[in-house]
Amino acid sequence: MTKWFNETLYAGFRQSHEIKKILFEGKSKYQKVVVFESARYGRILGLDGVVQCTEGDEFVYHEMLTHLPILAHGKVRDVLIVGGGDGGILEEVLKHKSVRRATMVEIDDVVIDVSKKFLSSICGKAFKDKRTNLVVGDGAAWVRDTEERYDLIIVDRPDPVGPATVLFSAEFYKNCKRVMKPGAILVAQNGVPHMQGPELTDAVKLFQKIWKNSGSYLAVVPTYVCGFMSLTWASDQDLAKASASKSVAARFKKAALKGLRYYNPDIATAAFGLPNFVRKLIPGVKPY
Amino acid sequence: MTKWFNETLYAGFRQSHEIKKILFEGKSKYQKVVVFESARYGRILGLDGVVQCTEGDEFVYHEMLTHLPILAHGKVRDVLIVGGGDGGILEEVLKHKSVRRATMVEIDDVVIDVSKKFLSSICGKAFKDKRTNLVVGDGAAWVRDTEERYDLIIVDRPDPVGPATVLFSAEFYKNCKRVMKPGAILVAQNGVPHMQGPELTDAVKLFQKIWKNSGSYLAVVPTYVCGFMSLTWASDQDLAKASASKSVAARFKKAALKGLRYYNPDIATAAFGLPNFVRKLIPGVKPY
Repeated sequence: MTKWFNETLYAGFRQSHEIKKILFEGKSKYQKVVVFESARYGRILGLDGVVQCTEGDEFVYHEMLTHLPILAHGKVRDVLIVGGGDGGILEEVLKHKSVRRATMVEIDDVVIDVSKKFLSSICGKAFKDKRTNLVVGDGAAWVRDTEERYDLIIVDRPDPVGPATVLFSAEFYKNCKRVMKPGAILVAQNGVPHMQGPELTDAVKLFQKIWKNSGSYLAVVPTYVCGFMSLTWASDQDLAKASASKSVAARFKKAALKGLRYYNPDIATAAFGLPNFVRKLIPGVKPY
Repeated sequence: MTKWFNETLYAGFRQSHEIKKILFEGKSKYQKVVVFESARYGRILGLDGVVQCTEGDEFVYHEMLTHLPILAHGKVRDVLIVGGGDGGILEEVLKHKSVRRATMVEIDDVVIDVSKKFLSSICGKAFKDKRTNLVVGDGAAWVRDTEERYDLIIVDRPDPVGPATVLFSAEFYKNCKRVMKPGAILVAQNGVPHMQGPELTDAVKLFQKIWKNSGSYLAVVPTYVCGFMSLTWASDQDLAKASASKSVAARFKKAALKGLRYYNPDIATAAFGLPNFVRKLIPGVKPY
């Protein structure tokens, strides 16, 4: 009989993946962790019943949270990744030779371990890279306490439930700002606006209190079901303008990134074109 | 016990909608037809087990197949809709006062009837509009035989299985070209590239043999699951350039379209920004 992973994220709607083989099933200190071989999306990592990443489409999310801000910024040397236990963000960040150090603070070492063991197609050799500074710990405490300073902070967090709730608070964002160098950029995921609109609105409201510039750009990750995923950004510079600048194409060429399946200089601009229903969710954006 | 509509489109992956109430269930000459009240997407029309449109997200597909080509063209007066039985395309087309006649050729009168009865939030009063010329019949035969000529053809077809297969053939496209005025545009849906890549490739291959210009733009319809939906176009003019032109914003303002939830002049450009994996599916497009 066919076995299915029935995602429990939304009441009344669900995606289901046929399970070909379960590779890992366990409970960490923080959450239920499962890795399985699916019928259509390769290996899938699930946390508390929700798809976190799949071999079949992880490239979208990971490329759009890394290459877009890095190439818009132009001089990213020090990166902080909050969360990101599967190593997918880390792997994309380290494709940039200009990056000299990537500090990744993930609270759940079980996620790191199963990713190293079963999801090497996603994390590659990132955990072994000399530039990687892997910290198993609380990202919120890290930005409160560290003496390090960053050009880019990538908040690769799940939805605002369970252990990740603290990563959506004003205090967390203020501490992020504290550790950002001038011109630095913060990017984060903020849910699927078609289903989780208030999550986007709430984040940008907080950003607007703390940073000079902020906003949202979009990516389409098939298994983050129900349409666009909103990626949010905050900075003392304007990421939308920076990402649309002509310098991006030249930087992209120079960076010679291999194996990209989503990001390119066209997308660097197009991702900031927001449908009306998304514009409405962002405080201060005028409706058309 | 909860009842679910489990979509059967893809092997090994499915979306499921909780059924609150079944409003219609029957079999037409061509297909199984169901309309039900869902938990998250309002009323849903299903054909042969596949979601065709929902009250919750129909606006994406219908706006992007109408306003984008109409405002890029600038002088659309005569429109042909092939398929489109739910009336959603027709309703958006008729929002343009400049349109003097919209001919809609739908093969399945049961779809039209249930849409009029249960999906009036989607079709509005479109079927009663004096400019509407409703034909219950075969769209492929219509473009072969009609003496009418059009500024815009919208092919609102399901996937290339069952009665719709003929709407994906070279003969059908050639006959479409036959009934297009100079400068006219054809748009169509061509599946979800993440899952149905060859459908996009095959369509553009045929277009390139028949028209001077063709390509794809993207829209994100939550219940057409698994990422972007590719909308394809063909014309003797360049739709990508026309849709990015400065005239579009002025035309958009002048048209004073009400209640748009997706289309706007930003999207008119952004929709043509294609991720690498979509670019690869289009013959002749160079990879980045």
